[in-house]
Amino acid sequence: MPELPCGNAVIGQSGGPTAVINQSLVGVVEGVREYAGGAVERVFGMQHGVRGLTEGRLIDLTDAPADRLERIAQTPSAALGSTRDKPDGAYCARILEACAKSNIRYFFYIGGNDSSDTCRIVNELAHTGGHELRCFHVPKTVDNDLMENDHTPGFPSAARYVAKALMGDARDNHSIPGVKINVVMGRHAGFLTAASALARTTDDDGPHLVYVPEVAFDTDRFTDDVAGVLDRFGRCQIAVSEGISDESGESIGAKLIGGQRDAHGNVQLSGSGALGDSLAQLLKEKLTPTGGKGPRVRADTLGYMQRCYPDASAVDQREAREAGRAAARLAGEGHIDGSVAIVRESKPGAGEDYRSSMKRIELSDVAAKTRHLPPEFLRGTNDVSGAFLDYCRPLVGELPVFERLF
Amino acid sequence: MPELPCGNAVIGQSGGPTAVINQSLVGVVEGVREYAGGAVERVFGMQHGVRGLTEGRLIDLTDAPADRLERIAQTPSAALGSTRDKPDGAYCARILEACAKSNIRYFFYIGGNDSSDTCRIVNELAHTGGHELRCFHVPKTVDNDLMENDHTPGFPSAARYVAKALMGDARDNHSIPGVKINVVMGRHAGFLTAASALARTTDDDGPHLVYVPEVAFDTDRFTDDVAGVLDRFGRCQIAVSEGISDESGESIGAKLIGGQRDAHGNVQLSGSGALGDSLAQLLKEKLTPTGGKGPRVRADTLGYMQRCYPDASAVDQREAREAGRAAARLAGEGHIDGSVAIVRESKPGAGEDYRSSMKRIELSDVAAKTRHLPPEFLRGTNDVSGAFLDYCRPLVGELPVFERLF
Repeated sequence: MPELPCGNAVIGQSGGPTAVINQSLVGVVEGVREYAGGAVERVFGMQHGVRGLTEGRLIDLTDAPADRLERIAQTPSAALGSTRDKPDGAYCARILEACAKSNIRYFFYIGGNDSSDTCRIVNELAHTGGHELRCFHVPKTVDNDLMENDHTPGFPSAARYVAKALMGDARDNHSIPGVKINVVMGRHAGFLTAASALARTTDDDGPHLVYVPEVAFDTDRFTDDVAGVLDRFGRCQIAVSEGISDESGESIGAKLIGGQRDAHGNVQLSGSGALGDSLAQLLKEKLTPTGGKGPRVRADTLGYMQRCYPDASAVDQREAREAGRAAARLAGEGHIDGSVAIVRESKPGAGEDYRSSMKRIELSDVAAKTRHLPPEFLRGTNDVSGAFLDYCRPLVGELPVFERLF
Repeated sequence: MPELPCGNAVIGQSGGPTAVINQSLVGVVEGVREYAGGAVERVFGMQHGVRGLTEGRLIDLTDAPADRLERIAQTPSAALGSTRDKPDGAYCARILEACAKSNIRYFFYIGGNDSSDTCRIVNELAHTGGHELRCFHVPKTVDNDLMENDHTPGFPSAARYVAKALMGDARDNHSIPGVKINVVMGRHAGFLTAASALARTTDDDGPHLVYVPEVAFDTDRFTDDVAGVLDRFGRCQIAVSEGISDESGESIGAKLIGGQRDAHGNVQLSGSGALGDSLAQLLKEKLTPTGGKGPRVRADTLGYMQRCYPDASAVDQREAREAGRAAARLAGEGHIDGSVAIVRESKPGAGEDYRSSMKRIELSDVAAKTRHLPPEFLRGTNDVSGAFLDYCRPLVGELPVFERLF
């Protein structure tokens, strides 16, 4: 047993919530009890992440009973509250100060690449700042864009929602034919949009076209693609990422809609139907013959239901819990910092039962970096490959089986 | 046993699909076999409703095996294809002609109030036109706006989706506080928007504000309502019907967005995020102090997932099937026309197990009429009553149970 500093532990949740981020929270709480119980006196939760920590808003989780923790784990979105704050050096110094004040020696932060960067900065400050603090990051993001991870907790459940939504919507589009655009989350990475392709069961099934940020989006080619599918099938179901960009990297959303910018200067893409509506308008204009009747065009923006609809993937729930426990285990093993990454132990598409494990990676391996869909997961400019489907299918769990009359 | 005309039967699906409209289709097929097997030779499906019928596109369902029918019943959206056509007298004459050509004596049409009107006209023409045809309507609409029905098949499943979506979204809104607008289907009736209130489990739980078409929408009052909830809870989750109108009956959607009109002159409300985005913009403008920072405001339009997401209510599945069977039973009993309506046999809120039955009503009782939320289901200008919750709760089935840390 390594010698561990004695004191308290604190856990925070950051960024966009997911359907399983509370599994990770509960995993850390359980893991701390199991692996570092001797050194850790109290386990606190930060209310609304590092913002709450610096403002002294802590929730004591030390004596939370197991059945209550289990119900928390089954509840979507961040039970501690989340924050969008991206701390700079000065902010991180205040975080360290707050930790010193409450005798916190173990800092766990559940989030995406910004959160791991916060961990990294706080950790560096702790090394130089005289308050010993061990910092661990637990991965979380529906975007699936963290380096070193086969996939990230939160992605499988969001992918499950997108696949099921597109399955239902494909039948709707078949019932009342026309063009149906579905805008999917993912500002820089197309994994979630790509997951829509799991909805297909036959050759003529939607989604017929899949557009991800990794492939430059060309509005003329888009119009031609849709016209081609309409000619062939009499209908066209589309999955398009909110983050599609043109050849020069400019966001199509920003180009078509202007759009409100957030504190970081990003155009607001989620929580607005503007991109879908603009693409629908574009198709109506381009596909309506002069003096004639154009196709029926509708757009849905799948929105926040992708990250909070209560129908999480079983694999995701298990792995999110395990990722939290693994971070606590790192602390118990005497590591002074680190992030947890999911490793796939089974070979995709080989008919093996799906298996995964957790490994430790350096905070700097994952901090402030973005992973993209690799080329082998893409097919042409408007589809994903069989390799992607093999990769994604075991993560989302069982999908319904539909029957058709024509 | 009454004397029944011998010939074929035809079944069609019309209007916006639902998650359980195929249960009704299969119910009719089963019911015809069971109740009118001696008189009915072949059972056809109309491909894309009356349009397909007049164009000779029929799908023979006579020998469809039970296991295939069961899979069809479990599949959302109209397996026969649907149509938006609202036939006039001349169109109905062509329908009658097509029926005569295929020796069809039994006409079943699954749909809303427009579909029952089609049944009514075809039925009247048949009486005067020399081709004996018995016409039956099977209720279907997520809007729940058919007269004489306690509720309509399709509504419970859509209500279940809305309630579950708002439950997840309420936790999201609690995690990252701000104003969240959710636009719900329902052009004239607010039942589906009202169902969002099932998401509430505590006094401070969302949805905090519910706006339905039955209550005149006032944008100033709306802004004040939201400001009040923000003051009280620091966040505000809103459910608003796509069909909200002002004092004079003018659609807020049409007023705020201009909007595309469909073939019937209606502004396109579904398949567009424009109303939610306009309301979000309005709140940002009104709630941002001069030179200060306004609240975070986001809008989701729940869209077509409300009617096609594969998670139907068990009560809805059973009743939609039974409604189809009941229509066939009317034919078998020798009725020459009629519609089926759901009667609730248990008293809402009295702790009894939920029970319902089917009754025959006249086509003219339901044709081209709209039912609205009764006054006793409303509370003030921005909420629904406990009576509505008692009415709605048994229909949607079990909802997940969430836990909170603060």
